[in-house]
Amino acid sequence: MSEAAQTLDGWYVLHDLRSIDWQAWNAATPAEKDTALNELSNLVADWEAVEARKEGSLALYSIVGQKADLIFMHLRETLEELNAIENSFNRSSFARFTRKEYSYVSVVELSNYMAAPGVDPLQVPEIVARLKPILPKSKHICFYPMNKKRDLQDNWYMLPMEDRKTLMRSHGMIGRGYAGKVKQIISGSVGFDDWEWGVTLFADDALQFKKLVYEMRFDEVSARYGEFGAFYVGNLLTGESLTRLLQQ
Amino acid sequence: MSEAAQTLDGWYVLHDLRSIDWQAWNAATPAEKDTALNELSNLVADWEAVEARKEGSLALYSIVGQKADLIFMHLRETLEELNAIENSFNRSSFARFTRKEYSYVSVVELSNYMAAPGVDPLQVPEIVARLKPILPKSKHICFYPMNKKRDLQDNWYMLPMEDRKTLMRSHGMIGRGYAGKVKQIISGSVGFDDWEWGVTLFADDALQFKKLVYEMRFDEVSARYGEFGAFYVGNLLTGESLTRLLQQ
Amino acid sequence: MSEAAQTLDGWYVLHDLRSIDWQAWNAATPAEKDTALNELSNLVADWEAVEARKEGSLALYSIVGQKADLIFMHLRETLEELNAIENSFNRSSFARFTRKEYSYVSVVELSNYMAAPGVDPLQVPEIVARLKPILPKSKHICFYPMNKKRDLQDNWYMLPMEDRKTLMRSHGMIGRGYAGKVKQIISGSVGFDDWEWGVTLFADDALQFKKLVYEMRFDEVSARYGEFGAFYVGNLLTGESLTRLLQQ
Amino acid sequence: MSEAAQTLDGWYVLHDLRSIDWQAWNAATPAEKDTALNELSNLVADWEAVEARKEGSLALYSIVGQKADLIFMHLRETLEELNAIENSFNRSSFARFTRKEYSYVSVVELSNYMAAPGVDPLQVPEIVARLKPILPKSKHICFYPMNKKRDLQDNWYMLPMEDRKTLMRSHGMIGRGYAGKVKQIISGSVGFDDWEWGVTLFADDALQFKKLVYEMRFDEVSARYGEFGAFYVGNLLTGESLTRLLQQ
Amino acid sequence: MSEAAQTLDGWYVLHDLRSIDWQAWNAATPAEKDTALNELSNLVADWEAVEARKEGSLALYSIVGQKADLIFMHLRETLEELNAIENSFNRSSFARFTRKEYSYVSVVELSNYMAAPGVDPLQVPEIVARLKPILPKSKHICFYPMNKKRDLQDNWYMLPMEDRKTLMRSHGMIGRGYAGKVKQIISGSVGFDDWEWGVTLFADDALQFKKLVYEMRFDEVSARYGEFGAFYVGNLLTGESLTRLLQQ
Repeated sequence: MSEAAQTLDGWYVLHDLRSIDWQAWNAATPAEKDTALNELSNLVADWEAVEARKEGSLALYSIVGQKADLIFMHLRETLEELNAIENSFNRSSFARFTRKEYSYVSVVELSNYMAAPGVDPLQVPEIVARLKPILPKSKHICFYPMNKKRDLQDNWYMLPMEDRKTLMRSHGMIGRGYAGKVKQIISGSVGFDDWEWGVTLFADDALQFKKLVYEMRFDEVSARYGEFGAFYVGNLLTGESLTRLLQQ
Repeated sequence: MSEAAQTLDGWYVLHDLRSIDWQAWNAATPAEKDTALNELSNLVADWEAVEARKEGSLALYSIVGQKADLIFMHLRETLEELNAIENSFNRSSFARFTRKEYSYVSVVELSNYMAAPGVDPLQVPEIVARLKPILPKSKHICFYPMNKKRDLQDNWYMLPMEDRKTLMRSHGMIGRGYAGKVKQIISGSVGFDDWEWGVTLFADDALQFKKLVYEMRFDEVSARYGEFGAFYVGNLLTGESLTRLLQQ
Repeated sequence: MSEAAQTLDGWYVLHDLRSIDWQAWNAATPAEKDTALNELSNLVADWEAVEARKEGSLALYSIVGQKADLIFMHLRETLEELNAIENSFNRSSFARFTRKEYSYVSVVELSNYMAAPGVDPLQVPEIVARLKPILPKSKHICFYPMNKKRDLQDNWYMLPMEDRKTLMRSHGMIGRGYAGKVKQIISGSVGFDDWEWGVTLFADDALQFKKLVYEMRFDEVSARYGEFGAFYVGNLLTGESLTRLLQQ
Repeated sequence: MSEAAQTLDGWYVLHDLRSIDWQAWNAATPAEKDTALNELSNLVADWEAVEARKEGSLALYSIVGQKADLIFMHLRETLEELNAIENSFNRSSFARFTRKEYSYVSVVELSNYMAAPGVDPLQVPEIVARLKPILPKSKHICFYPMNKKRDLQDNWYMLPMEDRKTLMRSHGMIGRGYAGKVKQIISGSVGFDDWEWGVTLFADDALQFKKLVYEMRFDEVSARYGEFGAFYVGNLLTGESLTRLLQQ
Repeated sequence: MSEAAQTLDGWYVLHDLRSIDWQAWNAATPAEKDTALNELSNLVADWEAVEARKEGSLALYSIVGQKADLIFMHLRETLEELNAIENSFNRSSFARFTRKEYSYVSVVELSNYMAAPGVDPLQVPEIVARLKPILPKSKHICFYPMNKKRDLQDNWYMLPMEDRKTLMRSHGMIGRGYAGKVKQIISGSVGFDDWEWGVTLFADDALQFKKLVYEMRFDEVSARYGEFGAFYVGNLLTGESLTRLLQQ
């Protein structure tokens, strides 16, 4: 039996991707649109207030392409709070103009592969801050789920702990090379959703997503053991750009 | 020819996952909502009465994320009773506000890999209780279907019985380490549904699902032979929280 | 080039799985429901008359779970007759309350792996009866499609005829162990549908499906070479239980 | 680098599979049905006139099972003509009663594996006739798309030309054994659609499809290198049987 | 750790595939159709004006078969501009008559495998022109996404840089053989969409797509390492042919 790496777990995460029902939206009266946008603004304001109290966080981006129009990324202390967020959205008058596209349930996670021996990571303030992060307001977001492969001789979970440590260290080095350019949030979803991890990247230059993910793909951890789901890329939505998106 | 492990089979199980048609629900009149909620409450009350008589059991949870809104897990003596449950739900006025998302048909199963020799397991009262279990009312549920792989050299069904026994014993040890934290119901679905087993976990701390499933993934039984379907995670629905979910 | 086993082919088979549009059904007037049920009863009566004349056969079961509500299994001498059955159903007023879920086109098949040398199987009356069978009215049905694998070294179609014969003989022994408990109809679908065979099982005790399929899964034919599609399990529908299913 | 076999390319092909919206059709007035059927008849008559001028060809069959109700197989000199056919269908009043199910774009192809050396195949009249064929009006059609595998050691495209030639020759022998029983049209779709070839078979006895495809499956070309998509089987539609299908 | 090839990145690309809702279109009044076509023409005129200013480019083709009716391929400097294009389309009155089918987000990319040493490629004018290309108005388009495989011993990303260079050079030779017949645009989508590259081909003779892709399939880069998504093939839409497509 192979030894599992310990993980540190922080806030629960809900990635909630919705598309707009443009037919319904274009056919709505100005009054209906106003009501819907007001309710959406109120929800966003509530979520921002939670973030201001450091009890959670929100990232709101538009998605490029047909996979979705909007991504809401919510962080909260409990699954019940995430469920309540979904329900308040679903019961809003804005929801009538949207369709569900994809969602992902996970928990912010720091792997312990690189832990210094003899140190309690929960005593390290920057680690605690990374477990309950306030999401950056970068210009772009990139989200994708992933697995570690278990395919005959390419089986991550059959590798000895030491080998996984070495591989993850080299993998981490690539990420560090993008410090200041790409902010990365890893969330674990084993037991919560269909893939093992969710990766959310934030950057002001979207090309950095491509460079980072492409460079990592040649690293043995990704090359031999990485299995990737759909990729979603988007642009930051501010109050202003959200209005521009939806107002005629 | 490899020898099949004997299984002990208990109650039939139906996992019934539904999403709410929020557009229809939000547009319904208060009277329509009352009627629908009353009929749902009556159905739940009927099912609880069956549980009180120990002729079956019910778990009712909300699901986090877009895969579904509600999961009903029903246990009954026969497939005909499960069919009747579906039909009474489908004919209720609440059903009009729901959409089918996923279902799973199986039977509570105890594998015999760890049977003590010379003991008739059906004479062991705790085994009988595990075959016809009253489902716990923990705060959280986790459900996923799974297979044992048959992929070239990673073929569970070609292993000698002795090897499978040894592997399952080590696998079981991990589960035992979560005693008191996670309650696990295994149901067999070979011949009934598209995967070979359904796994349903109950816990008051949802993080224990992640820890348990992640730790097991490094165990050879999962690492080499486990194949997993979608994961559904949810929060307990009581009369009160169900009302909160659906009332404005 | 490997030698193909000869098969004996009997009646064509259409598995036709439909779900009920409960929203439309619940909203229908009693008169509309009566008309629809009458037309359905007339269709079933026609099909039973064909069976009485031994020109075909019908199995009608409800399906447990969300995959479908009804399965009609039709046997006929020609593909044109199967097409006509579909069309008369689609043009009936009952069809308006149903949705297509899945169908499967095949032909009843007996493989010749176990043929006695020098015997013309079409002179054996019980073989002829198995090629044009009157379907049993057992309490339960189980249907699934399957392939023989062609995956690198696990390639059924590259095995010498003699090896396939030996393997199928051992496989057949398991089936024979369920004589009197499970009735099995194999139909071939190479060239007709997306899998190579359809397997339809009938039993009064649904657990026997699980025991049979599970035991076979350890047999090399299934363990190394079997590839399985979706499994559908259901309960017999008589005039009475059909009425119970659809009447309030 | 492995050498590609030269191919000879003839008419472009569109397989266009549609299902009938029975709910809309059953609800239509007799006048609406008449208009729709007249427009469909006019389209078919136009296409038959093209065939009479040898500028293209049409096969029109019903499909057995739920995958579709109708298959239109069109052959034309250019992709623009195929597009125009689609559009005239989509703009007809009959189209309102249909739903798109599947389509396949390819070009009639003769592989050159078996070319006699020193002969220009385009000077052989029967080869030219096979590249721009008038489709037979057999009682049954069978259509499926396929690939040649590229899976580790089972990689068709890494085989030396000579080996592919030898394998294809043996494969072709099986087909020749069905001369007079099954007419086979191979169309290439590399660069046009999701699979590499489309195979369309015509026969008066549908069982011959099964016998041919099953026998070929044991041939190394299919056994090791064949990868198959969905199979569609159908019955010839004449003016009369089309009317029977759609008229009450 | 294997070394990643450097890439040069140009304009962002959105492939936007839509189908026409023929039922809605056929039912629209002439005035509604006029309005919709005018708005579509205005959008196309805007996009052509951008192309005339060399700030982006547009390719507009019809698609053959049921996968879509229209493909819009947009090139722009930023992801925000692509998002704005989508939104102006979605808010137009023409959008009401369309359905989303597929989209692909990428960035024009030149790989550096074949770079001459010591030369700064961004100083080479023809390279800059290829990074921000004005799309040709050839008669036909072919689009497909693709990956490089990571499958056990067939793992592109585990190959040494030198081997990849050699393989890509031979691959590039095939492409060069089609100079003047097929124009090829490669766009990278790692971190942006579900496949690693998008390939868009333009040609006046659609058969050249088949010849090129088929010939490449025997090249080791494709044969062992290529993994292909759906293929879309289409015909150029001019103002005139667009009107013909949509006007009765």
